[in-house]
Amino acid sequence: MSVFGDAETVSLSVGEVFDLAVRVLTGAGLSLDHAQAVARALTAGERDECASHGLYRLPGCVMTIKSGKMSVDAEPVIEDVSPALVRADAGYAYSLLAFERAAPLLVEKAKKVGVAALVINNCFHFSALWPEIEHLTQQGVAALAMTPSHSWVAPAGGKRGLLGTNPLAFGWPRPGPNPYVFDFATSAIARGDMSLHDIAGKPIPEGWGVDSEGQPTTSARAALDGAMLTFGGHKGSALSTMIELMAGPLIGDLTSRESMAFDDGAKAAPMHGELILAFNPDLMGGANPQANADRAEALFAAFADQGARLPSQRRFEARECSLKHGVRVPKVLFDQIEALGY
Amino acid sequence: MSVFGDAETVSLSVGEVFDLAVRVLTGAGLSLDHAQAVARALTAGERDECASHGLYRLPGCVMTIKSGKMSVDAEPVIEDVSPALVRADAGYAYSLLAFERAAPLLVEKAKKVGVAALVINNCFHFSALWPEIEHLTQQGVAALAMTPSHSWVAPAGGKRGLLGTNPLAFGWPRPGPNPYVFDFATSAIARGDMSLHDIAGKPIPEGWGVDSEGQPTTSARAALDGAMLTFGGHKGSALSTMIELMAGPLIGDLTSRESMAFDDGAKAAPMHGELILAFNPDLMGGANPQANADRAEALFAAFADQGARLPSQRRFEARECSLKHGVRVPKVLFDQIEALGY
Repeated sequence: MSVFGDAETVSLSVGEVFDLAVRVLTGAGLSLDHAQAVARALTAGERDECASHGLYRLPGCVMTIKSGKMSVDAEPVIEDVSPALVRADAGYAYSLLAFERAAPLLVEKAKKVGVAALVINNCFHFSALWPEIEHLTQQGVAALAMTPSHSWVAPAGGKRGLLGTNPLAFGWPRPGPNPYVFDFATSAIARGDMSLHDIAGKPIPEGWGVDSEGQPTTSARAALDGAMLTFGGHKGSALSTMIELMAGPLIGDLTSRESMAFDDGAKAAPMHGELILAFNPDLMGGANPQANADRAEALFAAFADQGARLPSQRRFEARECSLKHGVRVPKVLFDQIEALGY
Repeated sequence: MSVFGDAETVSLSVGEVFDLAVRVLTGAGLSLDHAQAVARALTAGERDECASHGLYRLPGCVMTIKSGKMSVDAEPVIEDVSPALVRADAGYAYSLLAFERAAPLLVEKAKKVGVAALVINNCFHFSALWPEIEHLTQQGVAALAMTPSHSWVAPAGGKRGLLGTNPLAFGWPRPGPNPYVFDFATSAIARGDMSLHDIAGKPIPEGWGVDSEGQPTTSARAALDGAMLTFGGHKGSALSTMIELMAGPLIGDLTSRESMAFDDGAKAAPMHGELILAFNPDLMGGANPQANADRAEALFAAFADQGARLPSQRRFEARECSLKHGVRVPKVLFDQIEALGY
């Protein structure tokens, strides 16, 4: 271990990350069931070296808990709406326990009828979508998840925030421990990255944002005063709008703009809905499931043949390493978490 | 009407476009039911001034019919698989009749259980997806459709064609005649546009393609010898891969690479599957459908408020004009169609 590493990081096992998160979250007032669900998500992020969805989020979770807007102990209410539809009302608590409680019924329905939807309503949401997608692929179903956020992103041709950073995640079950999985924001860049450029006085690339007149800008400050943009121009903007509609009005829940209005400056996590679709290849694919699985594996092999990597490979490599050797948390973050006093 | 316009175009009513298409398609050997389904799609494209999906496609349709690979009269076989799943086996004919025959059952299922899927297998596919999406939104459901194509597009970090141009289309029902609808290829640009640049000796923008070494290129020739790229970098590449999986192995049908191998140089339309999902907002949205519809309309109004246009507006304007005044078909295309001799 380098001197730099020794001085600047704290080594923790993956189990210790989980215990730390549970201690802080329950200390801040979250019920044990909710705390464990949130801690599982934070631990997965830290383990996979997705620092922005790891322990880094813990102080923000405490802020959300303390905002008074969120329920710290609501039991998710699961409704079996139809052979293809499950609804989980999170009761203004975090989304993660609602997902965990409803996922078995979602999988059962998808296995039985081919495609099924899980609607999560009234949930505070801050977590990456890939842990949920991976959980579903482990049950043998393909899955697609989406959620709005806060309205920081302008539509193509616009100049003001209207769309969320609206992540989309998809997974496909594979033999072996790791599925095909991606999880990306439909904004061109994370909002935090924009702020870091502003603080450092660094220009941003074209395509990240527009100024308050809707003109392209390379000034992070001007873009923060104007709006962020989606990735991929008008196509990314259309996709982000689809997510607003499908994980908003379609499921009886808030758009990103409504979620931001609900927050009203409290800087809690966005509160809205989430949509998760599950697909059973064994039923949708007809007579020969093995041929279909092989067909997918041939596609993945062709990526490797031409030197292209599948999404999430870096994460899977980090995971393997973390499970063996533990993780190294920046000392400044660790100290900040300890200073919360829980 | 300008002299240029008089000299270079032929004026037809929308009904005449349909009749012309039916005459040529049946003349080339397609059964009347299939010819009318294909003609409806071509007429919609011509009417909406989507020239690339209008009568322009008719000579290619004739080439596909004459290739001997396609069935000219297969009756689609509709299977009611589950409360949420319909399968339509197109029997190696065009996809469009299979869609028309299966759509009512898809809508019925979505209305009843909230979300439903239509799998179309073994179909030759050349058409835009938005006519199908618009048909579904007219029945009050939201819809998402996707299909592979031929493997002209390299994944992010790759250098050879593997993915298709893989279009994605989505629609949301609205009050009034026109839904929210988009339909885009996940390739950075249409393959035809790349060829036009090559013929004209014009450089292509960065991001359209890579050369055969996988290096970015502004030479259309080098990109045609190498591969096209997806829109939106690694995110677009991931989305395109999702479409390969969902409209390929998930539904027991070919990937873009397999479809290209099936074609084996015949230059017929791609033959593979198509996946269409339908969502019932009245069931998925919970207790207050009108509030959800209003919430979507408020989102659309906020586009207009900041000067951003919704997708497909140009198409809807062209439609209104065409229905009143007819369409103007380039004379060179009209002559080419007449020269087919049907």
